[in-house]
Amino acid sequence: MAKDEKQFVTEITPQGEDFSRWYIDVIKKADLMDYSPVRGCIVFKPDGYEIWEHIQHELDRRFKETGHRNAYFPIFIPESFFQKEKEHVEGFNPELPWVTEAAGEKLEERLAVRPTSETMFGHMYQKWIQSYRDLPVLINQWANVVRWEKRTLPFLRTSEFLWQEGHTAHENEEQAREETMKMLEIYRDFVENYLAIPVITGQKTPSEKFAGAVDTFSIEAMMKDGRAVQAGTSHYLGTNFATAFDIKYLNRDNEQEFVHTTSWGVSTRLIGSLIMVHGDDRGLVLPPKVAPKQVMIIPIGPPKTRDAVVGRSDELFAELKSAGIRVGIDDRADVRPGWKFNEYEMRGVPVRLEIGPRDMENGVCVLVSRISGEKKVVEQSNLVAEVQAMLEQVHQEMFEKAKAFREDHFYSVNTLDEMKESMEEKRGFTLAGWCGSEACEDQVKEETGATSRNIPFEPATQHEHCLVCGEKASHTVLFARAY
Amino acid sequence: MAKDEKQFVTEITPQGEDFSRWYIDVIKKADLMDYSPVRGCIVFKPDGYEIWEHIQHELDRRFKETGHRNAYFPIFIPESFFQKEKEHVEGFNPELPWVTEAAGEKLEERLAVRPTSETMFGHMYQKWIQSYRDLPVLINQWANVVRWEKRTLPFLRTSEFLWQEGHTAHENEEQAREETMKMLEIYRDFVENYLAIPVITGQKTPSEKFAGAVDTFSIEAMMKDGRAVQAGTSHYLGTNFATAFDIKYLNRDNEQEFVHTTSWGVSTRLIGSLIMVHGDDRGLVLPPKVAPKQVMIIPIGPPKTRDAVVGRSDELFAELKSAGIRVGIDDRADVRPGWKFNEYEMRGVPVRLEIGPRDMENGVCVLVSRISGEKKVVEQSNLVAEVQAMLEQVHQEMFEKAKAFREDHFYSVNTLDEMKESMEEKRGFTLAGWCGSEACEDQVKEETGATSRNIPFEPATQHEHCLVCGEKASHTVLFARAY
Repeated sequence: MAKDEKQFVTEITPQGEDFSRWYIDVIKKADLMDYSPVRGCIVFKPDGYEIWEHIQHELDRRFKETGHRNAYFPIFIPESFFQKEKEHVEGFNPELPWVTEAAGEKLEERLAVRPTSETMFGHMYQKWIQSYRDLPVLINQWANVVRWEKRTLPFLRTSEFLWQEGHTAHENEEQAREETMKMLEIYRDFVENYLAIPVITGQKTPSEKFAGAVDTFSIEAMMKDGRAVQAGTSHYLGTNFATAFDIKYLNRDNEQEFVHTTSWGVSTRLIGSLIMVHGDDRGLVLPPKVAPKQVMIIPIGPPKTRDAVVGRSDELFAELKSAGIRVGIDDRADVRPGWKFNEYEMRGVPVRLEIGPRDMENGVCVLVSRISGEKKVVEQSNLVAEVQAMLEQVHQEMFEKAKAFREDHFYSVNTLDEMKESMEEKRGFTLAGWCGSEACEDQVKEETGATSRNIPFEPATQHEHCLVCGEKASHTVLFARAY
Repeated sequence: MAKDEKQFVTEITPQGEDFSRWYIDVIKKADLMDYSPVRGCIVFKPDGYEIWEHIQHELDRRFKETGHRNAYFPIFIPESFFQKEKEHVEGFNPELPWVTEAAGEKLEERLAVRPTSETMFGHMYQKWIQSYRDLPVLINQWANVVRWEKRTLPFLRTSEFLWQEGHTAHENEEQAREETMKMLEIYRDFVENYLAIPVITGQKTPSEKFAGAVDTFSIEAMMKDGRAVQAGTSHYLGTNFATAFDIKYLNRDNEQEFVHTTSWGVSTRLIGSLIMVHGDDRGLVLPPKVAPKQVMIIPIGPPKTRDAVVGRSDELFAELKSAGIRVGIDDRADVRPGWKFNEYEMRGVPVRLEIGPRDMENGVCVLVSRISGEKKVVEQSNLVAEVQAMLEQVHQEMFEKAKAFREDHFYSVNTLDEMKESMEEKRGFTLAGWCGSEACEDQVKEETGATSRNIPFEPATQHEHCLVCGEKASHTVLFARAY
């Protein structure tokens, strides 16, 4: 907590001045993380980690509800495993950290610290799957992974990060594709309805797909600087890893056949995303469903009524807590209420509850929404329902606000020149036609800094011609600069 | 699932014939784990991992209830950190795996894959703690750790394992010691009342304490071969790590002072322990509170009544499930009930529910206890309460049985010769007097294979003389061969 009451508001760089600095200011000031002594690795401090715990808890529930079970596979992957799938090794080799010695001896084979576990799951699935009766195999893993990135950014791109990786095996393409889309939809629904982040679902272009996948699908979210974050991906891997690891099964016609596999994941970059989507110049704005504290109670009024007000505040605290609401109370006598208001706004607490001596007499208190600033006088006798309603309202308003922002920064262009302008001046998501060639895609990237985010399932506009070469467009593609 | 119905019973080596083989047979057969291609690392398969999830869930609740919060620190620890605490580096250096290259380049400083995180927490706490107002710091971490062990055994000693490590900082020795004992008591209560494993609490002798601790306390459990497993430890670290990492704070008298720290942990070896404590020649016996399936429903009777019985079974399944009981149903028509009984007994499901056509007519079903074999006819109308009662009864009986086993294998000796006999013929836990010298402790180990497990807080017998040198005993020590 800041020791100088006046200091902190000015410590946060305004978003309009420097969005990157705003981001770092906010996550440090709100105590979500700290830099570690290891290059590109952060410490997830309790308030930052708790957001992840709430994400985990809800996603885990949804995975289990759809028949998946958790397991845990080794963090080390033998070097030879990476060689087995050609695209996979090319994609990940440049980022791998290697264990070469252990217990004082040089290892015979180097071990990579896992960047993802398709190869390890592949190796084990080969042992476990014999017959169609063993399928589908639906396993998820919550784990740490490491990718030695050149440029890092807390939460959004760190050398070590936390994630879940689902790995499933199926009898045929149809079933595997169904799983791929089912998990994408779970991500979309979760990110929209739990984190209040609107996303664009679609398919990655070949050059942007996962190393080793047949098709990659993603959800893309817009940050407040107009850049995109890939918030989750789901891959149909075809028989690529099955072939590499010889995962065959006896099918219903008594013939040996390769399984079809999928993988899908979201990571702690969701934390960075929700900060960049919702935050404002006063600090964090946390989605109520993952906020460590959903409500902060602040007793107000002169010293002579203090004991009575604090006493009543404690009762309200207990009532909200026993209703399962994550509530805090700041009853420090030596800190002004105004300072506390700023502090918990900066920390993104969705609802503030104020109570003073007059409120006590009237049996009411005041709820204040972090997102809209709305103040609502509510009956203490109906407090739990009122708080729940305001939390729901804050969630809805956050989602609508983020969606309106995205719509305000959503463009559609027909030429590369228009794309340049769109990226440099307007900033945001831009739809354009694309002929399907990698050369045209590369040229967009080179000249505008934007990459193809995905081919939206439901593009707002349809385009007939490629923005680069002018040939017939095979797809309408979403372009943006991305984190 | 075994494809040959008759085969599996004989696949489990009896405990009396070869306990180690029994253990491996059971964990493989019950599908809890598989060996991985990485030396000493296992794959935690869904049924094995789910036991860990239930352990995590309950311990996490207890940690939070006592004011701790979770965070996440990097898996990599710079080599120089280990040099800062002399005993710590000596204790862990022989077991460390080293990352020496990343992203195609040799690292300037080698990074250890964490074996434990006192040093990393120490480094960060030095930055975070300035004043007594910042204390206590009460943080826990759920993580994977790696120790490159020479001899490994699934769950009990693996190169990579999962655990939690609590790291706390306090103003003074008294508060840090209070924390140390509080966490030890949480472990004792959890292991006894959740895993049904009776334990002996006590203090480690200096030669067996954690590398870098002032005092280490442990809970020790007896396996069914009489060997001990250290099931949890809690360390008072004094100012050792505070001195090494310069963690000072401004105390209430406005003076700089070192904090006093603690650390405490339990790991996935708890899974191995509960298997070795409770299992029998028919397979696993899982404590109801952590069993992936607490109840397995098996419909029985001739083909003509099958549909009706299965229909009613599905209703009972839904009823138990909605009451929060982890229930399964095996209604396969092509597998005999007797085979299913054996299968789920082998898998350690605490309660079996049988229902046949006559039971349906009478509105009853039969509950069978895994631990005692007791069969109880219960009213379907009261099923949830009956199942809950039997689960509680199974837990109690498991605890009592394990305690009785331990008492049957609990000895007390006065001389080294008696200790030898105790270890070689009787096997179990043996109390003896000890003068306090490391030489005498070493001699016990050398001549009997037993190590000092701890100095029990409440030894069953008090000893006046050291079993080795015959001098006055300073402590009564618990000795055993250990995993």
